Amino acid sequence: MRQYHTKFNIETRGKGLYDLTHEVAGWLHACRPQVGLLTLFVRHTSASLLIQENADPDVRHDLESFLSRLVPENDPLYRHRQEGADDMPAHVRAALTQTHLSIPVEDGRMVLGTWQGIYLFEHRRAGQRREVVGHLLTD
Amino acid sequence: MRQYHTKFNIETRGKGLYDLTHEVAGWLHACRPQVGLLTLFVRHTSASLLIQENADPDVRHDLESFLSRLVPENDPLYRHRQEGADDMPAHVRAALTQTHLSIPVEDGRMVLGTWQGIYLFEHRRAGQRREVVGHLLTD
Amino acid sequence: MRQYHTKFNIETRGKGLYDLTHEVAGWLHACRPQVGLLTLFVRHTSASLLIQENADPDVRHDLESFLSRLVPENDPLYRHRQEGADDMPAHVRAALTQTHLSIPVEDGRMVLGTWQGIYLFEHRRAGQRREVVGHLLTD
Repeated sequence: MRQYHTKFNIETRGKGLYDLTHEVAGWLHACRPQVGLLTLFVRHTSASLLIQENADPDVRHDLESFLSRLVPENDPLYRHRQEGADDMPAHVRAALTQTHLSIPVEDGRMVLGTWQGIYLFEHRRAGQRREVVGHLLTD
Repeated sequence: MRQYHTKFNIETRGKGLYDLTHEVAGWLHACRPQVGLLTLFVRHTSASLLIQENADPDVRHDLESFLSRLVPENDPLYRHRQEGADDMPAHVRAALTQTHLSIPVEDGRMVLGTWQGIYLFEHRRAGQRREVVGHLLTD
Repeated sequence: MRQYHTKFNIETRGKGLYDLTHEVAGWLHACRPQVGLLTLFVRHTSASLLIQENADPDVRHDLESFLSRLVPENDPLYRHRQEGADDMPAHVRAALTQTHLSIPVEDGRMVLGTWQGIYLFEHRRAGQRREVVGHLLTD
């Protein structure tokens, strides 16, 4: 068995979902696996990873709206404020979603369903440079 | 080291938790591992995977009630409506739970605690045919 | 390739986040991996695992406050009450966070970002003895 690892760099432009599917699939293809396990890990606590619907962009819009309402900025509950009104909500949103994803690989491809895409979920207002580590274990 | 993979098909009958523990344990047993890592991955964005208490059925009932209230149907917030009132809430519920689970294996068994069961969490009202991929890496 | 496994025991003293980072890093170091995949799994349904900011303790405080408000005790919604007012909320909080974490390993270290720590998230009021299983797959 073999292991491969890589880094994906994503420049974000505000809160919301950024599609990583093609970039990850391209790297996977270059590794030429048959069967394996792919793991993605985001190296930040105010961004996360998510598998979501890839068809209607309204789904991503509504997911962002839902989380913005569930985890409001300027909530008097928060003590942690020095990094901006969106910082503590970003940590909560990250806690409620995922820091890593593992996806089995068969016939050289991730076993994603037809409507599944892989997204980086940015939780800060300002643009950020985000790093996602990819790890592949394969035959 | 070896890899095994399989598919579990689950016919759901509305929102709620469907126990997969025995089916997964049966497949694992047939693979005869000693030590390993088992990964389950659901190929949908309106269903998810969850480890929850397997003793009192009220826990599953209350979890369903909590999520139904937290993520209401017919919320004026949503733009995505064409697939039914339960569709966008299903995507949000999936985002707040898990698309995959990884469980270490020791002495040929998953290291689940006494009260832990593996569940498919269905988020749609109508019955669905759900697919969960199983991947095992073992000695 | 090789596999290692271990158990981490954590004595909790009420709700909140307990730092596991150093203990996990110590075990990892003893295994002397180069590249690999580390998986942690909590064997309970009223505690969970989380990667969160390790700098300002207010972040952990605010995360606990947020979840306490989002998932209140003594909610008339719950049927499951016999194990105490904090029990059903504990199951919901666990469902909204993670039962396992997988973290790639490079150059003998977890690829955690500078501000990422690994935490056990205790959801019960009374002190508990919690078990986290560690599994390492490495070259």
